[in-house]
Order: sequence, then C-alpha cells, then structure tokens
Amino acid sequence: MASMIFTDCSSSTTKARLLPFSRILLLRRRAAGVTLVRRLATLPNSSSRRPLTLRSSHSQSAYVTGIFSLATEKSATAEVIDGKAVAKQIRDEISAEVMRMKDAIGEVPGLAVIIVGNRKDSATYVRNKRKACESVGINSFEVPLPEDSTEEEVIKFIKEFNDDPSVHGILVQLPLPSHMNEENILNAVSIEKDVDGFHPLNIGHLAMRGREPMFVPCTPKGCIELLHRYGIDIKGKRAVVIGRSNIVGTPASQLLQREDATVTIVHSRTSNPEEITRQADIIISAVGKPNMVRGSWIKPGAVVIDVGINPVEDAKSPRGYRLVGDVCYDEAKNIASAITPVPGGVGPMTIAMLLSNTLISAKRAYNFQ
Amino acid sequence: MASMIFTDCSSSTTKARLLPFSRILLLRRRAAGVTLVRRLATLPNSSSRRPLTLRSSHSQSAYVTGIFSLATEKSATAEVIDGKAVAKQIRDEISAEVMRMKDAIGEVPGLAVIIVGNRKDSATYVRNKRKACESVGINSFEVPLPEDSTEEEVIKFIKEFNDDPSVHGILVQLPLPSHMNEENILNAVSIEKDVDGFHPLNIGHLAMRGREPMFVPCTPKGCIELLHRYGIDIKGKRAVVIGRSNIVGTPASQLLQREDATVTIVHSRTSNPEEITRQADIIISAVGKPNMVRGSWIKPGAVVIDVGINPVEDAKSPRGYRLVGDVCYDEAKNIASAITPVPGGVGPMTIAMLLSNTLISAKRAYNFQ
Repeated sequence: MASMIFTDCSSSTTKARLLPFSRILLLRRRAAGVTLVRRLATLPNSSSRRPLTLRSSHSQSAYVTGIFSLATEKSATAEVIDGKAVAKQIRDEISAEVMRMKDAIGEVPGLAVIIVGNRKDSATYVRNKRKACESVGINSFEVPLPEDSTEEEVIKFIKEFNDDPSVHGILVQLPLPSHMNEENILNAVSIEKDVDGFHPLNIGHLAMRGREPMFVPCTPKGCIELLHRYGIDIKGKRAVVIGRSNIVGTPASQLLQREDATVTIVHSRTSNPEEITRQADIIISAVGKPNMVRGSWIKPGAVVIDVGINPVEDAKSPRGYRLVGDVCYDEAKNIASAITPVPGGVGPMTIAMLLSNTLISAKRAYNFQ
Repeated sequence: MASMIFTDCSSSTTKARLLPFSRILLLRRRAAGVTLVRRLATLPNSSSRRPLTLRSSHSQSAYVTGIFSLATEKSATAEVIDGKAVAKQIRDEISAEVMRMKDAIGEVPGLAVIIVGNRKDSATYVRNKRKACESVGINSFEVPLPEDSTEEEVIKFIKEFNDDPSVHGILVQLPLPSHMNEENILNAVSIEKDVDGFHPLNIGHLAMRGREPMFVPCTPKGCIELLHRYGIDIKGKRAVVIGRSNIVGTPASQLLQREDATVTIVHSRTSNPEEITRQADIIISAVGKPNMVRGSWIKPGAVVIDVGINPVEDAKSPRGYRLVGDVCYDEAKNIASAITPVPGGVGPMTIAMLLSNTLISAKRAYNFQ
C-alpha cells in the first residue's frame, strides 16, 4: 500500500467531498442492494461468460444517477461497476458448488494460510480470508508463526500442506520478515496448490498461446470477471494496463490479450502515459498512486477498472484517512461509460477469486465436475 | 514458413526488382565486409551493451547509400542493420570464449540435436546448426530418428542428454511427426539445457520483474541484440510487436518491456494495426505475411526489425522464388531510420544466439566466468 499522502483531483473539488464518506457508501450499498443485486440475481452461474449486457443500458442505471445526483448535484454518466455485489454473487455461487461437492463426494475444499509475525494489516487480511472461507463452506487452516521463525520452519509447514490431500490451496501471507527469502518460500508451494497463481510457471502458461495456467492470479482475474459480468466486450478493443507488477499489471495484460484485446502496458518509464491511456477502450490501473489518472487521460466512453487502494489524509474521517483509487473518480465518472469505485470495486473481488481458485483446485484434485 | 504466394508492394515497383537478386546481395555483402565489419571490429566484446552509436551517423553510411543508389537509382535514408555482419562478429566472440574455456578447464560446450523423420528443410536447419557449432568449437551431437519412432523413444534420448555432463544444450528439431505430442516432448528437456528458451518457466521468468530466465529464446534475443549493437535506445520508446507467437512475438515484447519500452502487441484481432504501428519508434514484425507492413504503417525515423522470412514467386530467380520479409522493404527503407533486410537481417542472428545460449549454459555448468 502506498504511504499515506494528501492528494486529490485539484480540478474537481466538488460537493461530493463535503458529504460524509460513510453516507455515500450507505447510499451506494442500498442502491446496489435494491437494483443491481436484483439484476445480478437473474444471471446464469459464473461458468457462463458475459452473462449480462449492461454496458449500453444506461437508461436502466437510475440508481447510479440517483446516488450521484445526491452526492454531486449533477447526473453522472458512468455505470458504476459494483464489485461488492458481484463478489457476493460469486460467493453465493461458490457456496452452492461446495454444497454440491459435499453432497456428492463428502469432501469440501480446504485453504491453508501461513502467517509469520505480528503485522496488524496481515492479521486483518488473514482473518478476512478465514471468514470468507467459512461463509462459503471451505475449510480453512491457519498457521501463525513467530516473527523469528526460520525459512526452513516455514518451508516445513508448506511441505506438510503440499502432502495433505484435504488442503487444495496454500497461501503465505506477504510481506514476510526481512530475514527470509520470499522467492525460496513461495517456490516451495506445490504448483497444484498455488491458488495465488504467482508461480512463474503459471505466469509462463498465462503468457503463452495454447497453454493453460493452473490458476489465474486473483486480482487480475477479478478485473476480467467484472468486465465479463457487466457484458463488456474485450475482443478487438484497445486496452491499456497502467503498472507492470507481477501480481496485477503483468497478468492483467496477459488475460486481456488472451481475450484478443490489443494491449499496451504503461509504466513509470512511459514518456507520454496520458496520451497512450486516452487511446484505450478499457483501462486497468494498478500503480498505487492516488488520483494519478485524471479525466483528461480517459477517452469518452472508456471502461475504467481501478485496482488502486490508496489511503489519503481526511480530517473528516474518524480514522483520519480515506481510501481512493489510482483514478480521479470525480473526473472519470463523467467521461467513462463504466467505472469501478474505490472501495467497493475490485477490492471485494480478490477474495472472491481466491475462493474460486480454491474450489477449482479441489474439483481438479477430486476430479469432480 | 508461410505458403508461397506471389505478392509485392504494389505501389513500389522500382528498378530494384529488375536487378538480379544475387547481385544486390553480392554488393551488400561486399559493402558490409569493407565498411561495417571494420567498424564492428572496433567494438568491445559482446558483454558490453550498446557498444555502437550508429543510429544518428547517417553521414557515415556511404556504403548503404552506395548499394541502393545502384539498386534503385535514388538514395535511401534507412541505415541497413546488417545481421549477417553482426552474427559473424558474435560467432567470432563466441569462438574466442570457447577457446578460453578449453585452455582454462579443458572443456568445451556441447549441443545435442534430435531430428525425427526425413523433412528436407529440417535436415538443412540441423546441418546449418552443426556447421555453426563446428565453426566456433562447440561439440555437436546429432540423433537422427526414423519418422515412425515413438514419443517414448524420443524422450529416452532427451533424458540421456539431460544426464550427460558434456551436453549443455538440447534441441528437438520441429515440426515433429503428427503422431507425437510436441508439448510432452519439449517438457522432457531439462530446463538447465533448454537453450531454445521455450519452456513455460523461462517465459514466466521473462515476463516477471525481478526474475531472470535461464535462456532467452534465440530469435527475439537476436532482435534485441541488433538494436543494442546498433546503439538504438529502447528505454522509454514506444515499441510495437506485430504477432504474438510463443517463439518470437511474445518473448520479444517481454524483452522490450524489460528494457523499459512501452510495448503494444498488434495481432490478427487488432482492429487498426496500421494506426497503432505508426505510433512506434521501434517495430518488430513476426507474422509471416509477405510485405504486410507498408510504408504508411511506419513513422518517419522508426527502426524496423523484420523477422518474417517469406518465399514469394519470382520467375527471375533460378529457384523460382525469392525471400521477402513481413515489411515492404522498398517502401520502408525511405521512411525508417534503420531497417533489417530479408535475407541478411534477423535470420543469421538466430543461430548466433543459439550458440550464445549454449556457451552461457556451459559456463554455468562449469561455473566458468
């Protein structure tokens, strides 16, 4: 996560910022609950791709306009891509599949998480994963290890989980203490149980035509899933991925290309990022810089998937900060045709995709269709 | 290789085509021998990157202008990137390194090639590889197997070479007979000896930041080496790779990105390839379509690396055909600042890079610096 800084879209100091953040969220949640979830409930299950064709259905988006007319006192044009509602639907689908598996073969998927040390944020992430597992019926196994554990001790636990047939996914919560070699530890995870999808062999298969990865990394998989579920065409489109990290940017660009987009990766050495990004029909931003992507970077009608979750100072928030994306939302929402909010966009999708990967792994292990 | 078709840049029927092909080649070879090789001979060894700064030295390129004023009766603007001369220099450097290794530790690199069946083109490629090995002092081992061999028999030989410490690179000549599973066979090659660099784990490492592949695939490595040796800046440049094959397009895009270019891959589903390609400072084309990239696709001053080697009908050639690239050379040479010819551009670099990878592998095996 980027260090906390104060920043905002300087040209867009709208009334939205004066409205307490929790109220906007509340409204959004309510609207999503009423309108979007009802629409999502009519979908077939997640295995069918592009179940919805919402992109051009702006006339149906009264709930979006509704929220933002309250918030900004002018109507917004972008469809809000509600990651929270989609993630909930996916979790419901996974839950049903886990139950079907249990009924048929008496087994459920299992996810093991190893956490080293006492970082508060890591503890929160691990707790959220455990809760998410419980909510869909996936068994979760947790190994908390002291900060001064050795690399060998961590690898010993990984190997036990590698050999344990009731475990189908193994996660090592990052970051690890600085005395450990992250690459050595991650490489110890069996490729069949690497539900994070970070193994180089997975990335290689993802990059290659005619090959299939065992697992697709969760966050980029979540981005593509949002595009699918909102019926947004990828084939033949120009796509720009901002950021080239191993865990989001690179695999996101590979996934877009597998679906026949024409992809450009914009990064810190790109000399004219604004000009290139403005050519994109689909933008996925994953750089961790608050409000970096301004309205002027976005082609009218483009779809914006904002992976950034950046804390910025906010004296009005009880916590003293609030979370914003890489994209200047207030500017973008008037230009894009669809956009993910932060929070509530890509964020909730990551854990949903982790559960999805764990289910896929268990189905493969038990040869259960 | 694409099937043979008759095609040409329709708007560029210049006198160049009326001059016998062999004569142009002869002139080019002579010019390269006199002028370019002399300049290359002043270079430090291959381990230093960007040894030359030729790009803006058009005034020195009298030999290029010389050839083309004979050929087309107008002066060309593009620097000709002479792959043949560069490949020769690299082979000389490898030869010196092999001798140094032999003197120091009494060992030389070894390359094993397995060829199944009687395809004439495959036999030619394998013979060329053997000759290239001989010319630099690398041992070559050849296993010719009958067309009706089984997958298991091929894999048995691969495994023997995997275990043989005098073999540092293993190649299986493609295509294999149709009754064999190519993926199974290639996966049997030990990653430490996969000098083709096609293993998914290599491709994964190539795609990831902070990871290093064991080997870089030969043809894309040759493209980048040409850019380096001609002092062409990559960092911060817009690059377009046309074609997304596993053996050229994809690894070429990864290599360009590792050097901080901003890369777009154009492919068969790209809706406006001409417009996108015209934005590139560096174009690498690897699609196998003769003369597909027209002059109008090229930004003035761009650098063009043409990987295509396509036979087109030519009644004036004794063989009945001649070889052309993906790029319409006659048009491109007046627009680009530098361009690889076909033949004599990327082609000779592929085998040079194979020798380079075999040397790297042997150095690693013997821990010889």
